[in-house]
Order: sequence, then structure tokens, then C-alpha cells
Amino acid sequence: MRDAVPAGRATTSVPLLTDHYEYTMVSAALADGTAERPCVFEVFARRLPNGRRYGVVAGIGRLVERLAGFRFAEEDVDFLRGNGVVDADTAEWLRRYRFSGDIDCYAEGDLFFPGSPILTVSGSFAECVLLETVILSILNHDCAIAAGAARMVTAARGRPIIEMGSRRTHEDAAVAAARAAYLAGFASTSNLAAGRAYGIPTGGTSAHAFTLLHSDEPAAFASQVAMLGTDTTLLVDTYDISQGIRNAIAVAGPGLRAIRIDSGDLDVMAQQSRELLNSLGATDTAIVVSGDLDEYAIAALAAAPVDVYGAGTAVVTGSGAPTANLVYKLVEVAGRPVVKRSEHKRTVGGRKTAVRRHKPTGTVVEEVVVSQGRPESMPGDRELQRPLVRGGEIVADLPSLTESRDLLRQGLIAIPWEGLKLSPGDPTVPVVMLP
Amino acid sequence: MRDAVPAGRATTSVPLLTDHYEYTMVSAALADGTAERPCVFEVFARRLPNGRRYGVVAGIGRLVERLAGFRFAEEDVDFLRGNGVVDADTAEWLRRYRFSGDIDCYAEGDLFFPGSPILTVSGSFAECVLLETVILSILNHDCAIAAGAARMVTAARGRPIIEMGSRRTHEDAAVAAARAAYLAGFASTSNLAAGRAYGIPTGGTSAHAFTLLHSDEPAAFASQVAMLGTDTTLLVDTYDISQGIRNAIAVAGPGLRAIRIDSGDLDVMAQQSRELLNSLGATDTAIVVSGDLDEYAIAALAAAPVDVYGAGTAVVTGSGAPTANLVYKLVEVAGRPVVKRSEHKRTVGGRKTAVRRHKPTGTVVEEVVVSQGRPESMPGDRELQRPLVRGGEIVADLPSLTESRDLLRQGLIAIPWEGLKLSPGDPTVPVVMLP
Repeated sequence: MRDAVPAGRATTSVPLLTDHYEYTMVSAALADGTAERPCVFEVFARRLPNGRRYGVVAGIGRLVERLAGFRFAEEDVDFLRGNGVVDADTAEWLRRYRFSGDIDCYAEGDLFFPGSPILTVSGSFAECVLLETVILSILNHDCAIAAGAARMVTAARGRPIIEMGSRRTHEDAAVAAARAAYLAGFASTSNLAAGRAYGIPTGGTSAHAFTLLHSDEPAAFASQVAMLGTDTTLLVDTYDISQGIRNAIAVAGPGLRAIRIDSGDLDVMAQQSRELLNSLGATDTAIVVSGDLDEYAIAALAAAPVDVYGAGTAVVTGSGAPTANLVYKLVEVAGRPVVKRSEHKRTVGGRKTAVRRHKPTGTVVEEVVVSQGRPESMPGDRELQRPLVRGGEIVADLPSLTESRDLLRQGLIAIPWEGLKLSPGDPTVPVVMLP
Repeated sequence: MRDAVPAGRATTSVPLLTDHYEYTMVSAALADGTAERPCVFEVFARRLPNGRRYGVVAGIGRLVERLAGFRFAEEDVDFLRGNGVVDADTAEWLRRYRFSGDIDCYAEGDLFFPGSPILTVSGSFAECVLLETVILSILNHDCAIAAGAARMVTAARGRPIIEMGSRRTHEDAAVAAARAAYLAGFASTSNLAAGRAYGIPTGGTSAHAFTLLHSDEPAAFASQVAMLGTDTTLLVDTYDISQGIRNAIAVAGPGLRAIRIDSGDLDVMAQQSRELLNSLGATDTAIVVSGDLDEYAIAALAAAPVDVYGAGTAVVTGSGAPTANLVYKLVEVAGRPVVKRSEHKRTVGGRKTAVRRHKPTGTVVEEVVVSQGRPESMPGDRELQRPLVRGGEIVADLPSLTESRDLLRQGLIAIPWEGLKLSPGDPTVPVVMLP
């Protein structure tokens, strides 16, 4: 195919991943002298979607990457000025734009609940307001994926899950989804870009097309084994599953690593396949199942002789909750708490500080959030916020994805047991908001 | 913020926006001699999500951009080879990779139904199979957004809708979502990157934060009007809506273009606001409403004095159906139809040709799809597929987004009236599959 100027590449200009009104506000604030007022914005959820019992913080690492690229190229400014989005003074200000404020946040992999101050941005109004959309886009997407994925990991009870949903979501969102699913405890991904960008293990063997391409199923299996050896997974449901399994073991021998079933009643199929594999001497050949698996379908297979799950659509779409309901709200101006009137009953102004309180057994009791102060220190408290950016410079050593996986696993052990139920319910940890 | 190497940028390497197994299959097929077999792959939906009555083709223009970038940089090949995804021969083949086959597709903005052969890729197995994931990612995302957005446009009955959902979805998906919503008939977007990349009108004025930043609401309004004039929209629900409207008209005069209400019972609020505006002489001041609007909420406001809707979460998440269920299936090898056995009853092998059949009145009767042949020609037939790529070269003059908007509008006029109902139902046009 011939080369073309990929117009969509313009989307990688980070400052334009932003809503028009942020620039309008900056223009007006620069003109009226309020642009430099010190402000505090907070990211939090008013509620969890669909009766979820916890949220999972994800996307902080991606956010750091994006913020580092939040600089205006000359063509960005020209676009904004040429289209009347900003005036000349604002254009000049944007050319010099550097975020010089502070950011604090919960760690990736930590849990959150309604009201948890997940991320706090402080600095001048103009510097902070421009970050609203890109911060929310990243966190709303990644937290949504991680929360659904974490429920699947719980449902899988230690069996590994492969993320294979790239084809069901936007091509770039797919990469972030693979990252969030891995953070939540998935074993690997099919997405190669995620493998390269984040070091996530990738895997994959063959599709039905590969079998259909060949003259018959044994020919396809022989070709795959010739290339990949017997430490591979043969897809056995293109024609008849039982015959597929016989063909697989005939070609690869009983040392075959795994078969995959992608259709049919997976519970029945897994049982029959296990018996057949055993009868063929392939007692160590694993069974991988896939096909529209979400946390409920995975839970329903708990008693089936399944070794590995593949999850696609459900994980990349947040399993019914594709966005995390996070908002970015101005809570403080020049040290004074502010709040929209309609939210007086639910929302407290002012910069918040949060700790999670635990019983001596280690079980979480509550999250205590204090506005413009600090929670009284108690034994078993864990501080939830940590400095990410100071004076525009990243100061945190970000946790690795492996460390975030561990944090989430520990977090899910520490919540009350009801928190791991798949059914809709209240948030498992109350957030006590002290004004 | 200091510069950093944005690792996530690696995601713009198009050939890695791909599932691992596509490369595994190419390796094995190159080794066994089947890689060059001429194949036909088709993209279609087995069903529409959630009882939707039609699908909307969207993403073809984006697909063309991405396919033009489907070339292997040396570091892409090094990654694939270094991680054992491909062998040395395959790595060499990838270095020379150019898609040299053909692609036919439905036009962007056209409708589709279960079984419609939306996109047909033909060429060697190895060349075609590598495109599976990126094609499906783009079409599954963009078609899902367009389908939900089209229902909102129908529900809005001619009133304009502004797309403002960027913050609720992945930051790059947001740009594609704005494009798909505009294609579906939205009036504008808040997303500046979409404005630059696709020429979509952008708009936006101010958020609650802007009002909270100022000493009081009149000061915020005065600042906004000083910058943008009275041809702007003032957000009046930060404190008390009635007082907000009085403040707005006091500051801007009765020539103010619009007020926006983002909370509360929008039906009641719109009615009260209209009466108040009229009593203040602001009879031409429009009312913009926003806040968790989907097609049902928009329809419920049909009798309210609303002039413009703002839609966010629902549009960027496909309003309950965030993916379009499209699959990419091998249907022909060396002229021979192929089909997975479990799908014999539902799926027909072979390359399909599709026409949409109309009554003399112009109403669609059915879509006729013929495998390995052409439908009998009838008066009122419209051919649905057109050449997009021939021998790897783009041969189509792609329709502009404006032309695609027109095509969709005409298409929705031509379907049976039940097709525009918001309730769940069967696809409004039957697809008659002739083997």
C-alpha cells in the first residue's frame, strides 16, 4: 500500500487531547487576572459503576508518560489560534507552557472507593485546568478495565487468564487495556504492542483460519508443531472437537502442552476433552477455554477441568462498565474550599488527605478522608497518597507493573470478604469524610 | 515537567497493534508453503448488540490511514525476532512486507445488518491474516460509537447534539469517537484533536471550575463575556439556576446566545429556565442541557424547551454496546469456500456480493448476499461494496465525513419505520444469504 500522510497521527499531540473549553477558560482567566490563582483539583468517583464493591487505581504510569509530552508544538498553537480557540496572549502563554505544580496520587494497584481522593493536582488555575481531560481519559479508561479484570482474576481462583480482546476495542485503547488487565493479575496478553511497550508476556498460537487454510486439520497441526514444537496450544474446535483432540495428540504426542476450545458449552466440552486426553495418555496436556468469558462465565467454570482462560470482549470493555465515573473537580482556590452548590450534601471542598484504617488482623475497617487537615493517627493506618510530581518534576519512583500487581493482590486480601462477591452491592469499605 | 521517553509512543507502530498469533501463523505458513495461498477474509457481524435494529459502518477512513502505516521498522522486526515471536525467515519476510492484495467495503455511513459483508480482504494468506486485529479494532470501535450516536440523533429530532465525552474514554479512542459521532450526525465535538485531525467543528465555553475560581458568579460571567462576547454559552447551575440565569442576562444582556444546565431534572429545569429567560426578554437565548444523556434521556426531553443537547459518557461508550461484534473470517482458500464446522448453519463460505433491494417507493425490502456469484439484478438495487484497495494501492476516493453523514441520513430514511424505534427488536432489514 502506498504511503500517505496519516492524518490521525495528529492525535498524538497531547495538548490537543483536551476539551475546547479548557482553552476558553484559560484565555478568559489570563485576561481577567485569575489565571495565576493557586488551585487544587481532585480526581474522585462519586459512585462505583454497576454495584461494584471496589475500584482499582490504574493508569498512573501512562499518565506520567502523557504529561511529559504535554508541551505545545508550534503547529498546536497555530491550530488553536487559527481556529479562534485562544487569543494572541494565550497563544504566547501556551508556547511557554510547562506544568510547574504538584501532583499526589494513590499508587497503581491500590483500591479506591467513592470519595477517595485518587489524584490531587495543585498549581495555578491555568496550568491545572488544561490537564483535566487527558487525566480523566487515562484514569477513567484504565481504572474501568482494571476493575473488571480484577473480578475475573478473583473468579478464576488462581487459574491463569490470557487477555485477548484487542480486536474488540480501539486499537490504541487495546494496548492500555492489556496493561490494565496485566496489572489486575492477568497472566499475559495477545497484544504485541503492549508486550513491547510494557514488557508484558505475550502469547498466541493459531486461529481457525490457520486450520481452514490447510488441506485438513492434521496438516495444520503438523505445521504448527513443526514451527513451535509440542510446547504449544492446538486449537481443536474448527471441525469436530473429539476428532480434533485425537488429531492433536496423534500429531504432537501426549507431551502436547495444551489444547484450546473456543466454542460450544465450555463446561461440558472441558469435561469430555479432559477424559479423552487422559484416555490418550495426554494427562498433562492443559485445556485452554475462550469465547465471551466474563467473571460470571469464569466463575461458572470453577468445577470444570479448565487450566487456562482466555478473555476478550468483557475485559477490554470493563465487563459492563467501560468507564470509571471519575471526575476532576476544583476543590480549593487560594486556600479557600470551594464546592458547587448542588453537591453540598455529597461533596466536601478543600484538599483532602486520606488514610485506610485496619483492624489488628489486617482487615480494612474504613477509609478516613479529611479536608484541609490530617486524619488522627491510629495504629494500622496506611497513608494512601504519595507525591508524584513536585514543581513540575516527577519525584516518585513509580512501581513496576509487578509491584502494582502485588499491591492489588494484598489489597484484595485485606478488604472484608464480601468485597470479593461478584453480585452487585455497596462499596466494601466506607469512606468517612471529615470536613 | 521534565522530558521523558514516552514508552507508550511505541503503540503507534501499526504492525504491533496485532495479536501474537497472527505472526505465529505467518511463520508456520511460510515454512510449510501455504503462506501464498490466495485467500478471502470477510468482516461481518453475526448479530447486532442489545437488540439494535441496524448497524452503521464507520472507521473506513481511519482504517486507510492505519493500513498506510502498516510497515515494519527495523525495531519492530527486532522485537518480534528477539522475543521469539517469529523465526529468521519470517523476520526477513516482514522487512519486505507490503500489503499487495485487494480490499472492498461498504461506504462509511452506510447501514449494515447481521451477515452484511462489510469489508472483504483478498490476497495471500500471510498478507491478509496480519491485518485482522487492526481492522477489527478500528471497525468494532468506530461502528459501535456511530450506531449509538445515530440513535441519539434520531431521538433528538433535529436538535443539535454536541459530543463531549472525551474524558470518559481512552484518550486516543476519544478522537475516533468524536469522528464517529460526527459521522452519525452530531453537530460538533469538544475534542480539539478531532477538530484538527478531521476538520470537525469544536466548541466549548466554561466549566463549573471557572465560576468557582472567581469571587462570585457575575464576575465569572463578566470575564467570559469580555473574552468571548455575548455569542457564548453561560453555565448557570454552579449555585442556584434561577439566580444564575438572572446573573447571566444581567451581565450579557438579552442577546446572550445560550445558557447551559448540567444537573438536576433537566425537563423541569428547561421549562422553568425558558419561562425565566422569556420574562427577562431573552426570548432568543437558547438552552443547552447536558448530564448523562443517552438516546432515552434525549427522547424523554422531546417536549421540553431544549435547543441543544450535550452528550458524553453514553456516546463514547456506544450507549450500552461498546463494541460492534464484528469478526474477520477466512471464507475462501484458492477459490474454495471454507467454513468452521460449528458455524455451518449460520455461516456461508465463499466471497460474498451484496445488494440492497428497494421498493419503488425507495423503502428497503431486504439485503441479498450471494456467495461466489452475483445477485440477480432487479430495479431499485443498490450495490453495497466498492473497491477500496487494488494491488495494495488505494483506488477509492473516500467520501468526506459530510458525504458519509448524508449517506447515513438517507439510509435511515429508506429503512422501514420500525428501524428507528429505540426499543430492542430484530434487525429492520433481513439479509437473505444465497449459497
